[in-house]
Amino acid sequence: MSQGFKYERLFASSAPPANLARAFAPRVRYDFAVAYPDPDSLPLEGLWQAAREALRREGRDLALYPQSRGNLALRELIADKLARDRGMKVSTEEITLANGSMQAITLLFEVFLEPGDIVLTERFFYLGTLRALRRFKADIIGIPTDEDGMLMDELEKALKRLASEGKRPKFIYTIPAYQNPDGSVLSLERRKRMLELSREHGIPVIEDDCYVDLRYEGEMPPAMHSMDADGRVMYLSSFSKIVAPGVRLGWVVAPEEVTGRILAIKLDGGPNEFASLVVRDYLRKEMYPHIAEINGIQRVKRDAMLSALGENFPLTCRWSKPKGGLYIWLELPLGADTVKLQEAALKEGVGYISGVTFSPADEGKNFLRLCFGYNTPEEIREGVKILARVAQREGMLDPKHKGGDLVDGGEC
Amino acid sequence: MSQGFKYERLFASSAPPANLARAFAPRVRYDFAVAYPDPDSLPLEGLWQAAREALRREGRDLALYPQSRGNLALRELIADKLARDRGMKVSTEEITLANGSMQAITLLFEVFLEPGDIVLTERFFYLGTLRALRRFKADIIGIPTDEDGMLMDELEKALKRLASEGKRPKFIYTIPAYQNPDGSVLSLERRKRMLELSREHGIPVIEDDCYVDLRYEGEMPPAMHSMDADGRVMYLSSFSKIVAPGVRLGWVVAPEEVTGRILAIKLDGGPNEFASLVVRDYLRKEMYPHIAEINGIQRVKRDAMLSALGENFPLTCRWSKPKGGLYIWLELPLGADTVKLQEAALKEGVGYISGVTFSPADEGKNFLRLCFGYNTPEEIREGVKILARVAQREGMLDPKHKGGDLVDGGEC
Repeated sequence: MSQGFKYERLFASSAPPANLARAFAPRVRYDFAVAYPDPDSLPLEGLWQAAREALRREGRDLALYPQSRGNLALRELIADKLARDRGMKVSTEEITLANGSMQAITLLFEVFLEPGDIVLTERFFYLGTLRALRRFKADIIGIPTDEDGMLMDELEKALKRLASEGKRPKFIYTIPAYQNPDGSVLSLERRKRMLELSREHGIPVIEDDCYVDLRYEGEMPPAMHSMDADGRVMYLSSFSKIVAPGVRLGWVVAPEEVTGRILAIKLDGGPNEFASLVVRDYLRKEMYPHIAEINGIQRVKRDAMLSALGENFPLTCRWSKPKGGLYIWLELPLGADTVKLQEAALKEGVGYISGVTFSPADEGKNFLRLCFGYNTPEEIREGVKILARVAQREGMLDPKHKGGDLVDGGEC
Repeated sequence: MSQGFKYERLFASSAPPANLARAFAPRVRYDFAVAYPDPDSLPLEGLWQAAREALRREGRDLALYPQSRGNLALRELIADKLARDRGMKVSTEEITLANGSMQAITLLFEVFLEPGDIVLTERFFYLGTLRALRRFKADIIGIPTDEDGMLMDELEKALKRLASEGKRPKFIYTIPAYQNPDGSVLSLERRKRMLELSREHGIPVIEDDCYVDLRYEGEMPPAMHSMDADGRVMYLSSFSKIVAPGVRLGWVVAPEEVTGRILAIKLDGGPNEFASLVVRDYLRKEMYPHIAEINGIQRVKRDAMLSALGENFPLTCRWSKPKGGLYIWLELPLGADTVKLQEAALKEGVGYISGVTFSPADEGKNFLRLCFGYNTPEEIREGVKILARVAQREGMLDPKHKGGDLVDGGEC
């Protein structure tokens, strides 16, 4: 289409500028950038069998527009899962399905945020959430972390400072289980302390538990939602990691007061009923064996990446050793520029995401996130080797300074 | 969950009030309220076969997050369909898939609308669009219509008046094919005239063509998009009516300038790839025979409803005789209150939607919309009979006044 007509002057001033780049994300051989699961262990046969049964039994219901909260039986399955795995007692009315947890996040933010509202997060966190917070023009305060997650002393300090300035944040957003990008797990003690601080300051918590099922070793504390007696924790999760991102099914657990607001702005005709029927029938039969299977596969991949890092990266670098999830958080020497390095790495077929992409303050130039979910262990070893070579060639591994103190637990 | 924590003071002032009612829409025996398709002609076997083939061939791709615009091969199928059926020449880059056309509508509105912006529409129009326009606090000006759609003299008058006041509307939103709720088709001449007015006044058009495939008789003019040389028409459609609402797949066709803005705010992780693969494989094989089949079925249902209206409603009433789509627009005598009637009708198992629900000015109290898509012809005859009886009993058919002049082409 030729385009004579100019739209520019008609756009809402609140709408963000065009972003066509997002439509052309490059695919590379060593795809450590995006948090894809293992493509060979997707339950394709199981999904297809489930599709046949679900369509035969309930296919007629596809003629209906879905319930606003989404398929009831899938919400029942989720309520059962949360009780069993996370110690949570929630009713189906508290659960709202969404097209991936990212839609749920956006809806929550739209319900709460006005430009300039203060939000507390980990110092580095999920870029999708960061993008959404920026879209709603939140004032984001990143709290420092260590290998046990957000530092409660730092959170307390920030809350006290804000209170003394007469400012009350809208909420705390946290990924307490296998945090994205640093892989940390918020300890039980800190979970309790976060809830105390939330109570003291009257600030709700959004607990994003999207990666919790991907546990390779160690224990996982119960969800903060389960320790909360008065509804101050809103909880997010998703089937992207244990079924597939392509089914686009996530959910939010929130009290009626919040759910009613969400439903008032959720004008998309309801969650995908077709995907809901199929995923529900599949999970009823196969959920826990499938989770065990993919965790076995991902554990091997994580170990492959950790040993490849040890073999190829020098003493000037450090990295996380996550007990679950899909990411390793790699710290190069201070002065390294992982944004600049990106282009050279992509040319050699290695994709990753620079630390700055996870930082509300554009910090973390010497950090990068590596996902080990998609490639085979062999490819992971090759890709990490290539990345180390490129980084070396570009002078990014030189010990101008010893790495900072943002991440602990790595080794060289 | 007990809920001690109070969220009320934390909500954004721009967020609409809670709406839990949407989660509890009643299902009734004679469900003339929602635009459901025929549940018995859903292509369940075809979808299941397509699921098997698509998962075998491309299931691995479900591990990926979908492209922002959605599955490329499905967008190719849509581009081909639009060329064949609507005379449109569009590239796959101009097409963005969404979770139903309702998501596409919401995204477009978010790109364009600031509170108080003027939007021109038909006098009565799709309640989902109306809800979205209200959410973005648009100033909606409804233009009168007749059986050939929006009256161009009235549109011109409104545009001139606004221009004389120094106001420029953001866009014209129209459903030119089997308009929802009145079933009218915008004539070729008026389509041309609307484009002229759009050019003269520098105002783009959003053409919502969601119902165009449901043609039971007569000709359908080409899409306005196809007659537009310079990109001023944005175009919406959906697979809800020819596959199923439950697959939640719609799309918007827009120039790059607009698409880039849409992608910048569309943070949901992409359209449903699973549904896209399955629907695409199904439609490649079966699209036109399936459309022919469902149109044969819906034509019989429309005729059943028209004859039941003729048999049961008195001379004080009028109704549309649509050549396609899923709706009949019924006008009761002036003074009738279809909001009040609703409860009595629901008690007897008959659902419909009151005219006021389609009006930005809360007009149309004596109108109601009846959908003939879901029930069988026999049920339609029963339901219409019951509705007439209830309306009679409630005094809604008394000829206090002869019906107004909003809809022509009905008879008693």
